[in-house]
Amino acid sequence: MSTNQVQIFDTTLRDGEQVPGCKLNTKQKLIIAEKLDLLGVDIIEAGFPVSSPGDFNSVSEIAKLVKNATVCGLTRAVKKDIEVAADALKHAKKPRIHTGIGTSESHIKYKFNSNKEAIIERAVKAVSYAKTFVEDVEFYAEDAGRTDNEFLAQVCEAVIKAGATVLNIPDTTGYCLPEEYGAKIKYLKENVTGIDKAILSCHCHNDLGLATANSIAGAINGARQIECTINGIGERAGNTSLEEVTMILKQHPYLNLNTNINSKMLTDISHLVSDSMGMVVQPNKAIVGSNAFAHSSGIHQDGVIKNRETYEIIDPAEVGVNESSIILTARSGRAALAYRAKNVGYELTKLELDKVYSEFLNFADKKKEVIDEDIHQIMKLTGIVKPVYA
Amino acid sequence: MSTNQVQIFDTTLRDGEQVPGCKLNTKQKLIIAEKLDLLGVDIIEAGFPVSSPGDFNSVSEIAKLVKNATVCGLTRAVKKDIEVAADALKHAKKPRIHTGIGTSESHIKYKFNSNKEAIIERAVKAVSYAKTFVEDVEFYAEDAGRTDNEFLAQVCEAVIKAGATVLNIPDTTGYCLPEEYGAKIKYLKENVTGIDKAILSCHCHNDLGLATANSIAGAINGARQIECTINGIGERAGNTSLEEVTMILKQHPYLNLNTNINSKMLTDISHLVSDSMGMVVQPNKAIVGSNAFAHSSGIHQDGVIKNRETYEIIDPAEVGVNESSIILTARSGRAALAYRAKNVGYELTKLELDKVYSEFLNFADKKKEVIDEDIHQIMKLTGIVKPVYA
Repeated sequence: MSTNQVQIFDTTLRDGEQVPGCKLNTKQKLIIAEKLDLLGVDIIEAGFPVSSPGDFNSVSEIAKLVKNATVCGLTRAVKKDIEVAADALKHAKKPRIHTGIGTSESHIKYKFNSNKEAIIERAVKAVSYAKTFVEDVEFYAEDAGRTDNEFLAQVCEAVIKAGATVLNIPDTTGYCLPEEYGAKIKYLKENVTGIDKAILSCHCHNDLGLATANSIAGAINGARQIECTINGIGERAGNTSLEEVTMILKQHPYLNLNTNINSKMLTDISHLVSDSMGMVVQPNKAIVGSNAFAHSSGIHQDGVIKNRETYEIIDPAEVGVNESSIILTARSGRAALAYRAKNVGYELTKLELDKVYSEFLNFADKKKEVIDEDIHQIMKLTGIVKPVYA
Repeated sequence: MSTNQVQIFDTTLRDGEQVPGCKLNTKQKLIIAEKLDLLGVDIIEAGFPVSSPGDFNSVSEIAKLVKNATVCGLTRAVKKDIEVAADALKHAKKPRIHTGIGTSESHIKYKFNSNKEAIIERAVKAVSYAKTFVEDVEFYAEDAGRTDNEFLAQVCEAVIKAGATVLNIPDTTGYCLPEEYGAKIKYLKENVTGIDKAILSCHCHNDLGLATANSIAGAINGARQIECTINGIGERAGNTSLEEVTMILKQHPYLNLNTNINSKMLTDISHLVSDSMGMVVQPNKAIVGSNAFAHSSGIHQDGVIKNRETYEIIDPAEVGVNESSIILTARSGRAALAYRAKNVGYELTKLELDKVYSEFLNFADKKKEVIDEDIHQIMKLTGIVKPVYA
């Protein structure tokens, strides 16, 4: 692995599936896991084995099925959790146990009723125990976003000594600003002894709409794994969107940060996850929303027709969409109307276009969208006949 | 206005409404405009008056209706656009004309088939002409995100001299990273002569999921206006979300950047816009998604029940949501089950809870969500009777 390679850790089936009312059954999870493997994700977090017999079974089946990716199971820093996870992962080609504990004051005080020393001890114990089952052990410092950097560095140092291969620095509550999250990763990179033996990982939540930006800030500052989900699904406002972070890295080659993701599969897998979970993707969702490549205003349409790159930074084909759409509404100008009219067989002169355009505006002020059928009617009303050879 | 006050420029009715198939009629626009005024936005961009007679009429009616906010109309750097906008805005208490032109190489070359000098000339002419109608003239440098900073500074300097009061620096294609967009604003703040006579404005698009982060980076670096829409709606992947940027500033008081937004109205206005336009808000949308405050995993539920702030950075009441939900799924733990059981009248002992919990897991592995009715059935199956006083 080159040092500029960013591992994509997909947690659609674990953190992503923690969505009220959207439980997947094992069969659905296997279909998604197989697609994720083809998509090129490096790690699939398959579930939280100790949480229920159904989840154990899913992790176990996914571990058997997946060919290329590492398969990972979540645990708390609890002996039984780790044993159950190890058991669920026993058939995985590349197993990883993901264990951890809360490190922020709020978590230590209210959740564990504990203190800093005891938390480090539990963390080290959990990692050491997980190491008795698998080589690849990831440690999460829950609520790292609100943990002071000095204590966080102490925790990281201790678990690296215990054998942790990956350090997950979650912004559990989605509170951090990108500068702050980036600075946290930088601090750890510079202040943790032995940091070169482990990979720093970003795990960001989207409560303030900043999960993607925070993950990118983390990668720019030295993290080499991003934890994310398809469509950004997950509890509350969800996780970092896999499609957003991977396309940002792809579209900014000067960052020199690469992933193994085959972006042409993104639209397809977005639909699969949305349909399986019944989780709607809003039309204005970046990369995978149904409108992500649809242009409706006159100014933009004119620009795109003249040269796609005027308003589009991503070629839709790059993410598996056939073409960008020019939608006709009251905001559309002459260029869009001429373009769409041409698509259905009318080559208009400038004079004809003027005539047709005012009729078009009458239509468009009454209708939300002017479709091909309407174009034929507008032509008829303005006396324009389709050439027979068209 | 204090220098730490960030003006909120809402463009739900202009850039937001540029969505395929989601045209609002004048009546719907008036209802939304009135709510935006109550919400506390500083500027309402009401439409693009020259684009159609329907849009002209909407801008004109909104101008008459709005009591507090500035009402703004969009134009190209075209004489007729400006005249029509001025006419539409003539009854506004505080009118603003928003005019501009593309400044990136791609726009100058492909869209205008022009050159840099001619673009500056057109920009100055448009601003000067708009000034003959209104005092408050905002200039947009379209595709500023891909415009080189030196030329952008020249354009800004020229239009300030011509009387522009606000300089809109749009990342039209949604390409910028936060650091880059922040640096652009900083460059202008430091290199444009006369910059103190105008307000710099962020107008970011969400094609890579970074609109919110870019706008915040802009404000941190000296911009004092953010252009945004309710629910982040708009063409393609939409605009910056009003609810996200305002809550970020509110939740990070150390930034010392304030807005006039009454956050308690955010949920309500989100529903109004979504319903009026038929534009679905995904459940995992930050701040206003239906799951934004819903907890379903055991680890999180346990934390929230012990202390809300363990996993929630925003009190749901702050954005007009009555309470955070504890949803019961196979991922829920004993604490959540006990909490919900108590809500419907069962005070369980530790021993009873253990018994009930395994029955609950059987239920939860089969059902997506365990509802109150199921709780009663689980209790019945495990022989637990609701106390009569409950």
